[in-house]
Formats: sequence, C-alpha cells, structure tokens
Amino acid sequence: MSNVDMAEVRAWAREGGEMAKRYFNNVARELKADQSWVTQADVEVEQMLRERITQRYPDHGIMGEEQGVGEIDREYVWSLDPIDGTGAFVSGLPLWCVSIGLMHHGAPYLGVVYLPILDDYYWTDGQGTAYWNETPISVIDTDTIDDNDWLAVSSYAHRIFDISFPGKTRSLSSIAADICYVARGSALGALIAKAKLWDVAAAMAILHAAGGVVHLLSGPRVETDMLLDGRPMEEPCIAAAPGMIKRLTSYVARR
Amino acid sequence: MSNVDMAEVRAWAREGGEMAKRYFNNVARELKADQSWVTQADVEVEQMLRERITQRYPDHGIMGEEQGVGEIDREYVWSLDPIDGTGAFVSGLPLWCVSIGLMHHGAPYLGVVYLPILDDYYWTDGQGTAYWNETPISVIDTDTIDDNDWLAVSSYAHRIFDISFPGKTRSLSSIAADICYVARGSALGALIAKAKLWDVAAAMAILHAAGGVVHLLSGPRVETDMLLDGRPMEEPCIAAAPGMIKRLTSYVARR
Repeated sequence: MSNVDMAEVRAWAREGGEMAKRYFNNVARELKADQSWVTQADVEVEQMLRERITQRYPDHGIMGEEQGVGEIDREYVWSLDPIDGTGAFVSGLPLWCVSIGLMHHGAPYLGVVYLPILDDYYWTDGQGTAYWNETPISVIDTDTIDDNDWLAVSSYAHRIFDISFPGKTRSLSSIAADICYVARGSALGALIAKAKLWDVAAAMAILHAAGGVVHLLSGPRVETDMLLDGRPMEEPCIAAAPGMIKRLTSYVARR
Repeated sequence: MSNVDMAEVRAWAREGGEMAKRYFNNVARELKADQSWVTQADVEVEQMLRERITQRYPDHGIMGEEQGVGEIDREYVWSLDPIDGTGAFVSGLPLWCVSIGLMHHGAPYLGVVYLPILDDYYWTDGQGTAYWNETPISVIDTDTIDDNDWLAVSSYAHRIFDISFPGKTRSLSSIAADICYVARGSALGALIAKAKLWDVAAAMAILHAAGGVVHLLSGPRVETDMLLDGRPMEEPCIAAAPGMIKRLTSYVARR
C-alpha cells in the first residue's frame, strides 16, 4: 500500500482551486486542438500539482490533461485534471473541479475531487470509505425512480442519445463532479459520453469506495489500465450502484 | 416611474440567500402537492421578503411561489421566488437563486436575481441597463453556432423535446439562472418548458434590459400580464436575442 498523506493531497487540491479562482470570470478563451477550452489556469494548476507530486513521490508516474502522459509503467501513477469542467469554468458556471487521482497497477486507488466554488471535497484514501468533506457517503440503490431522481448527463447527450429516464437529467459539465454526485447519493447515476482517464481517475476511486461501479453501455466494467496512455474510453459508460446499472442502461439508446 | 431603492432590494436578496444557505446541504425533503420540492428555507425567505416589501411599498401587490397570489390589481406587483431551483438546492447543487421581480402594469419592470453560492447578482433598475454585479451585460446575437455555444434547458427536456441544437445543452435547474446566463451572453438561449411568473419575473426584466426577449415556441412574445394570477405559461418558450429566436426554435421539436 502506498503511504500517501491525504491531508497534503487535499491541500494541493485547494491550492489549485485558489489558483483557478483568480482566473474564474476573468478568462480569455482559447481553442485546443481537440476543441475543448483551455485556459492559462489549467496549465498553471497542473504544473503546480506535478511539482508537488514529483518532489514528494519521485517514484510515481504522472499523466495529466495539459502536459500529457509521462512514465505510466510505474506501480503508482497520478492522473490529473487541473480543471475538470473547463467549459463550465469559461461560461461562469460553478461546477468545475480540481481532480487528483492515484492509480495502482492501473486501477483507481485514491483520489480527491475539489469543487472550489462550493468549497466541497469528495475524497477517499483507498481504505474503503468515501467522504464528502468529513461525511461518509454511499450510492443510491432503489427500485423506484420518481420525478425527483436525477441522472447526470453530458452536455452533448441530446445529440447522441435518446434518453427515456423517467426522472430529471442534469448536465453539470464536469465528469468528475457528475460521478461524485452519484457517489454521494444525490444523482442516481451518471451517463458519461466520452472520458479520458484524468476525467475519471479520482472520481472512480471515490465512487468505488462509496459502493458504485462504472460499466460500458455494452455491459462490461470499465478497465482503466487501458486508459493510462491517455486514449479515450472506447464507448460511453454509466456510473451507479451495481444494482442500478442495467436499469439505467435500458433508458439510453444511441441516436 | 416607481422610485425603488435597488441597493435595498439587493440587500433583501442577499439576506434571503444567507437565510437559505443555513439550510443548504442540510435540508429535509418534503413533497408539495405539485411534486416540486419545498423546504423550510423557501417559506422563511418568502416571509421575510414579503415583510420587507409590505413595510416599504404598502401600495404594491405581491405574488410569490410559497404564499401564492395577493392583490394583483395594483399598478406595481412584486413577484417572488424565494429559492428558484429548489431541486438543485435539495440535491446539493450550487445553481439556485433568490428572485425578486417587480411588474408594472403586468410587464417585467425591474428585478434582482441573486445566486448565493457564487455571490453573483444579476439585476436591472428598469432604466434600460442590465448588470452582472457591477458589469453591464448583453445577450449574444450570432450567425455561427459552434460546439462551445450552449443552450440552457429544463431537467425534463429529454422527455418532452427532441433537441437538435448543434452546441451544448446544460440543465442548471433554475429558470431564473438560465435566463440570467442568456442575459449575460454566456448561454445563447434558454428553452423553458413550463414557467410561472415568479420563475421569470425578475429574470425577464434583466433579459429585456440586456437586449433579449422571450417568445412562445409557437411564435408570439410571452405576455406576462396573463400570468399574474399564478397560472403556468400556456406552452414552452425560448429566451434569447431577438435575432436568435427563430433559429433556436427550429432546433426544438415536441416528442
């Protein structure tokens, strides 16, 4: 087991959030090659996180959204999204987060997702419990879905899916936040159209510790070791309690 | 013209937001007859706002979400939503707001929408300019819609509409916030499935001052004087720049 100081990782996440907040509502737009928004804040926060990690855990690898994939053949690899939900960030919306995950042999092990505007932490130390701030959390498993239950969806879900979920759908614009709201038992599930490892690494560790799982729409569980090289997931996936996966999948058809 | 002290109205909105924040992430769920969430916070905030208004503007009428419709045959009628986005509030999501609008002869005249978690004000004093905090704002009017443009939609839009908008859709769960993001030029438009006057009164005053309009999907502008008695709008509507209404409407089909 890795001996990671969670208080320190949470402090890094907050430091990143504070750096990003100085740019929030004050950003210039720039287009990345892949058309997602990038901001100076993204770059600066990832650089800071890489320096902290390299100094403290020199044997660990790092892969992140901005600077790409480093040594991923290590036992432990950090997966960083300095600002998950950059589109929300650029639009002046509050749900963006700093996501710091640690993979062990390619599987999500521990992580911190920090939402600076709410000052909310979601985290797990890899010892089997997930927390929202200091409160243990767990996913919802229910037989009855009503009007007030909600599914987190991608902001382009309307173009690629036909969704018959009988409750609400909400598009928050951050995959990591989507999964954390599932882990907390606020959302019933999250429909993730296309993710890379840095979007999900921390949140999946938290979700697993909260009793949840992530499955591809075609059925099998998501294998994260395949994603260490930065490639996108091969197909959309659903995050939820194990008992909810089949039902939620049945509400989603490809257009 | 009514001589309303906007600094005072903004202070009421903040006072309401502070009251509500004490309940945020700490609420018990209750179902109203109409199945929307109600919380003690809603009731307390509206009561406070009614007391402030009645004391300061005794000749004005008031209609609000929690206590319903009072004297609406007055020249000036306040329209209150103490927490617009109660569903978001109950789910621990940040986009809920205190909405205080003033109608003049049945038309939106001035208003304040306050988002406590962001500490953001959207407001107009009825003199022709809309503000986000102290910054004048205006709607977007564009010929080109790309992947990063977004449309605010209802959380049950997936069940009633087929949306072919080529950009993003986001469901923030507050009609007033949706319209304010349009007024600010962040969202291109808002598709509002079903609203009552208290959801839109303040935000429409702000939108109009920002150069925007609200039209029913069938074409005509929304006539708010019909809504003073608390009835819902007869059909869904779209809020946007005048030049965007037709195009945005073309992306929305009823299922």
